[in-house]
Amino acid sequence: MRLDAEHKVTGAARFTADLPVPEAIAARVVRSPYPHARVVRVDVSRAAALPGVVAVLTRDDLPPAPYFGVAYRDQPIVATDRVRFVGEPVSAVAAVDTPTADAACQLIDVEYRPLPDLPTVEAAIAPGAPVLHETLEPSGLFGDLGNLSPVPQTNICHHAQFVQGDVEQGLAEADLVFEDRFLVPAVAPLPLEPHAVVAHWMGDGVVVWSSTQHPFPVAQDLARLFGLPLSRVRVIAPPVGGGFGMKAYSKLEPLAVALARKAGRPVRLILDGEEVFQLLTRHAAVCTVKVGVRRDGTLVARRYTVYLDTGAYADTGPRVANKVALRALGPYRTPHARVDVYCVYTTKVPAGSMRGFGGPQVAWATERQMDLVAHRLGLDPLEVRRRNVVRRGEVVRPGKPPMDCEPLEMLERAADLIGWGKPLPRGRGRGLAFGFKDGGGSRTVSTAVVRLHADGSATVSSGSVEIGQGASTILRQIVSLELGVPLQQVTLSPPDTAAVPYDQATSMSRTTVSMGLAVLEAARDVLAQVREFAAEWWGVPVETVEAGGGEVRAGARRATYAEVVAGAFGMPAGEVIGRGYVRTRPGEHDRSFWEMGVGAAEVEVDPETGAVRVVRYVSVVDAGKAINRDLCEGQDEGAAVQGLGHALFEALRFEGGHLLNGSLLEYRVPLAEDVPEEFRSEVVEHGGGPGPYGAKGVAEGGIVAVAPAVGNAVQAATGVAVTELPLTPENLWRMMRARAAQTRHGTVEAPPRPQWCG
Amino acid sequence: MRLDAEHKVTGAARFTADLPVPEAIAARVVRSPYPHARVVRVDVSRAAALPGVVAVLTRDDLPPAPYFGVAYRDQPIVATDRVRFVGEPVSAVAAVDTPTADAACQLIDVEYRPLPDLPTVEAAIAPGAPVLHETLEPSGLFGDLGNLSPVPQTNICHHAQFVQGDVEQGLAEADLVFEDRFLVPAVAPLPLEPHAVVAHWMGDGVVVWSSTQHPFPVAQDLARLFGLPLSRVRVIAPPVGGGFGMKAYSKLEPLAVALARKAGRPVRLILDGEEVFQLLTRHAAVCTVKVGVRRDGTLVARRYTVYLDTGAYADTGPRVANKVALRALGPYRTPHARVDVYCVYTTKVPAGSMRGFGGPQVAWATERQMDLVAHRLGLDPLEVRRRNVVRRGEVVRPGKPPMDCEPLEMLERAADLIGWGKPLPRGRGRGLAFGFKDGGGSRTVSTAVVRLHADGSATVSSGSVEIGQGASTILRQIVSLELGVPLQQVTLSPPDTAAVPYDQATSMSRTTVSMGLAVLEAARDVLAQVREFAAEWWGVPVETVEAGGGEVRAGARRATYAEVVAGAFGMPAGEVIGRGYVRTRPGEHDRSFWEMGVGAAEVEVDPETGAVRVVRYVSVVDAGKAINRDLCEGQDEGAAVQGLGHALFEALRFEGGHLLNGSLLEYRVPLAEDVPEEFRSEVVEHGGGPGPYGAKGVAEGGIVAVAPAVGNAVQAATGVAVTELPLTPENLWRMMRARAAQTRHGTVEAPPRPQWCG
Repeated sequence: MRLDAEHKVTGAARFTADLPVPEAIAARVVRSPYPHARVVRVDVSRAAALPGVVAVLTRDDLPPAPYFGVAYRDQPIVATDRVRFVGEPVSAVAAVDTPTADAACQLIDVEYRPLPDLPTVEAAIAPGAPVLHETLEPSGLFGDLGNLSPVPQTNICHHAQFVQGDVEQGLAEADLVFEDRFLVPAVAPLPLEPHAVVAHWMGDGVVVWSSTQHPFPVAQDLARLFGLPLSRVRVIAPPVGGGFGMKAYSKLEPLAVALARKAGRPVRLILDGEEVFQLLTRHAAVCTVKVGVRRDGTLVARRYTVYLDTGAYADTGPRVANKVALRALGPYRTPHARVDVYCVYTTKVPAGSMRGFGGPQVAWATERQMDLVAHRLGLDPLEVRRRNVVRRGEVVRPGKPPMDCEPLEMLERAADLIGWGKPLPRGRGRGLAFGFKDGGGSRTVSTAVVRLHADGSATVSSGSVEIGQGASTILRQIVSLELGVPLQQVTLSPPDTAAVPYDQATSMSRTTVSMGLAVLEAARDVLAQVREFAAEWWGVPVETVEAGGGEVRAGARRATYAEVVAGAFGMPAGEVIGRGYVRTRPGEHDRSFWEMGVGAAEVEVDPETGAVRVVRYVSVVDAGKAINRDLCEGQDEGAAVQGLGHALFEALRFEGGHLLNGSLLEYRVPLAEDVPEEFRSEVVEHGGGPGPYGAKGVAEGGIVAVAPAVGNAVQAATGVAVTELPLTPENLWRMMRARAAQTRHGTVEAPPRPQWCG
Repeated sequence: MRLDAEHKVTGAARFTADLPVPEAIAARVVRSPYPHARVVRVDVSRAAALPGVVAVLTRDDLPPAPYFGVAYRDQPIVATDRVRFVGEPVSAVAAVDTPTADAACQLIDVEYRPLPDLPTVEAAIAPGAPVLHETLEPSGLFGDLGNLSPVPQTNICHHAQFVQGDVEQGLAEADLVFEDRFLVPAVAPLPLEPHAVVAHWMGDGVVVWSSTQHPFPVAQDLARLFGLPLSRVRVIAPPVGGGFGMKAYSKLEPLAVALARKAGRPVRLILDGEEVFQLLTRHAAVCTVKVGVRRDGTLVARRYTVYLDTGAYADTGPRVANKVALRALGPYRTPHARVDVYCVYTTKVPAGSMRGFGGPQVAWATERQMDLVAHRLGLDPLEVRRRNVVRRGEVVRPGKPPMDCEPLEMLERAADLIGWGKPLPRGRGRGLAFGFKDGGGSRTVSTAVVRLHADGSATVSSGSVEIGQGASTILRQIVSLELGVPLQQVTLSPPDTAAVPYDQATSMSRTTVSMGLAVLEAARDVLAQVREFAAEWWGVPVETVEAGGGEVRAGARRATYAEVVAGAFGMPAGEVIGRGYVRTRPGEHDRSFWEMGVGAAEVEVDPETGAVRVVRYVSVVDAGKAINRDLCEGQDEGAAVQGLGHALFEALRFEGGHLLNGSLLEYRVPLAEDVPEEFRSEVVEHGGGPGPYGAKGVAEGGIVAVAPAVGNAVQAATGVAVTELPLTPENLWRMMRARAAQTRHGTVEAPPRPQWCG
């Protein structure tokens, strides 16, 4: 059950690009053709003279400090002194229509002086490489980003670390040590709806409609950039047609606002099918992992070295690096460990947050390596996982909450469902992997208002954006449950910074937990006031009054909410306003949860072509408490299918900083036909979440395990120790051929087909 | 200073008719040509077949109980069994454009069977007159309308009474008794912006944009009519281009919503320049007053009999009648009094609330009679007023607050300013009158939210509508004052029932007082929480923390609001949500105030033509505390100029139920050239208001005194005992001629020109 379904499937929902804004004109962006160059001159005279052109924005029109970014204020609204990636905005045109704006873009003469490009992490960290950002100003956007550790005068904008025990000692003490290197390419988040912004200066403030996941942080950025109080920046977030992190934080909003300011007219900026590839990617990662184990598969020590390619601007890169450091070890006990993650600038499209936030990249390494180790030891990967996985209540990471669900139980359930150990025909194999990540953010801020109307119906005011995840349903459910008011009588006030209270973000699988708690608190605040009002009205002590289930009771007295409101306000009028704050109080500990899942795949690999068919896929995720099972399953299924794309075919291909497949003609995401024939999401409820009724978020977990589960199954099917994504036919065929050659030449001993492969 | 001035004068403000609503189609209304008729048949087949017509609404499309109204649910969305005034909606068309809708209206065949019309109060109360409404269902909209007293099986829908002492005994004991009859015609409220509504059904609810003063009561009506919870009815009130009461409560909204429901498309209904005359008028009144006085001018007894012509539907008529009963005696002590007010249905355009709510009509009687009595006794009208007027602290009406300002001081000031007692050339005269009314409503409900943002700026969420009165400025000022945040950093969330909390009404001069108090309470609630947050952050007792003036202090500690918010939420994020409720608690007494003013006019009357020129006009009003002097003066001046129109030339002329001058070609309101050469509004601050800082509302008071002040001046100038409005040249010329004839024939003794006339 989701309340916005009809709205969406009938086409009644209006997304940002659909909004009618009178006198709005079209904006188009001039983008850099160079991966790295000095911008010598921007001459817009010919463009400005074109009839129909209202304004041309250049670096000369920017506010004094025109830089923004999530970790660092490193990204200019349009390029100032230099460009750092192909597709970087250099100028923008506002004109009466899009063709005119496009034509004007062609008339803008930009003189560039090319600089050496840094197309790879290797090039960027090589000694003597040009430094892309000489100075780095932390954005200070959120408190938990305070731990930025750039390596000065390099392109390493952040070095994240996780250390426990003594990794060198651990490796020395291990029975066996293996080292593997795992590669994950950049991929495109590609929501169905392109990023769209309408910016409209009104009076002495600005109104922005944006397909954003973060209306409040965007408002904070715009306020700072344009010297406005927050109260004069209004960011409205219509329903978003998929975000996946790509629409997190400021993206096009500063440019649209600057252009609208110059134009003196509202402007509408909608990315086309190529530009969405020039906005944000998911970090490519190179993970080298040295693992020391006992012969029985028990982990003793692990040392990770991870490089994340964050492109030309850091965006959330440093936070992704922190998450990789935190999540690298997976849900496995490891007495000695060290994780070093380097977030590196290159001259490519910026990489930022995408569903899973580094989790999928590092899980590819960790969960593949569990299987590699098992293979090498001749053990069942299921058994190796059983042996190492943390149990409920066990400390997972220092300072983080202890494990809040039953990973082992979930593992067994996934194994059961995929038929682990049962016979399989040749060419097929099964794989298992944990999806392990923290969710919700260590610090979290959500605020909410619940209004109980004079007729007993209610409205929730929340800054959470409906990005397809079902926020607009779940928050109403919580109010309905708390007040005992039918769901159809509870509505949601749409996200609008002028009208609803602050929310930090619609990301990090946090909405049900963090906003859910704020809404819950607000609903309970309503009930507390209803009790007080009834006590006043009836002249009884408030302690004797109960409220809930749609009514108020004291002794033999009964009244509906509507009657109590009328009694309190002296007429059938008024309303009760409840507020809820979720915040991290001074000294309060980490508020995150463990977003746990297990993926299990059965694949069939065509020995001739290397084509992988995922015959069955099972995802077991813990929702803590599934307030809305349909939504949990929908999120989990969507995440798993998205993960299949990353496992099987998605990769952005760059050549010297130039993106080769940056269009919807050349890059595809999973289609309905890519969904496995047998596809099952099993949502379990272990009740340990910090959210309402023990709920957790489940928005991202389902993606994490997919690639390694499929990769593990591919190894089981083929014997090929795949370490690089995606598992395209071509890639796999090459690896199968190489392995066959090695086996023939005796380089690798072909292991006996183990019993656990079925 | 008003913050929306630039927005308005540059044309940037968007009114309801300007709003872009995609796919909205045009609505036009078919109206009755008969003042009273049975509707036999409505055949829309030809209209429905016209290309471009999307829907035709008839009585068959209405919800089961299709009646609405402020006092009674007596008005159908479109006529059901009969029509009761010329212009009553009978059907409506939604079509692709207005010309098509108009053409379709012409094709709707309505068969009427005419019934006897009741064009006057006399006809309506005559024995055997047909009863226009056989049954009357009280709307119960607000608690204080509970005292409805219809006279069964008559056209008197309400009989309001005020009694003190024993009026017959008082009249018997008086030295002299006079009886006079005063006539006030119906006038048109005529705001610049016509009434406009856009209705849009979305999902299982409806969104309505309306040029309304009452978004919340309209939502309540729509919820009831269409069987929706309040939370699914969203009424948005864009800036309103003048309301004056005409846009109070539901007007066109039910029709637009019903039509949109049938059309399955948003519809836009905008009244044209004739239709605005068919929506609402101000009650015509006939007041007969018998007054008993002592020879020194002291009032002993007064008996009022007032008939209000409320037209075909009661609208606010009964409440206007209650106000007439309450206000009739003016601010004068009268030991024995009885006021009977009859609100009478006729077959004319409904009459409802307009600026002053019965106050202007009855003040014409009361304040003119004070002068008539003074003339008859040979006394100075100023002295007669001095002798009778209540003083501060004195009981004015039982159960109401005592007098909360200094009427005598205001009277003297107005007299001084108009030059009372100074010589005047022939043909000129001066007049004084009290403007006396209660304001704010005896019961009142406003709720508000104030949000303190993470940067220390603030947003007010209020349901008060900006109708030109300056609500959007004053509410921000109150927050700015309370928090000590610069005014430019305080913004206002626009009225939208989905987004801002409940407000009862933008009327009754109540916004600064009632919403002002709610906003003040919300701002103080913010400060209280800021103190708590700071105490928690600093680890000090909350009692030691002070907040205000933009900062928070405890001992030597200092922090900005922004710092405290960041401290409380653990990052530079979050916000503090303050709420304020203004309500009438169980058992709580009357919350109104006295909206007092004095008008003083100097006129010159052309003896040849009867043309009255208002040479000087002075209005002295008590604002209690003028939070914004410009706004107070603006309201007072606007009210006075509107009152001049009613004094000098405005009147709706009916003939047998047909309005003869119902268009902007035939009916005019005051222009800039009608403003007196010397025109002064003096706002005094007697500090006795119940609003913030002692404030009162001043929106209506200025209109009440105008007509009698001018009428009194006209009598002083001409000796003519004018009792009927308006004082057009033609009317006055006739009266002057009649008086001259009477004087010649000795019927009337020409009084000596008294000394106080100057």
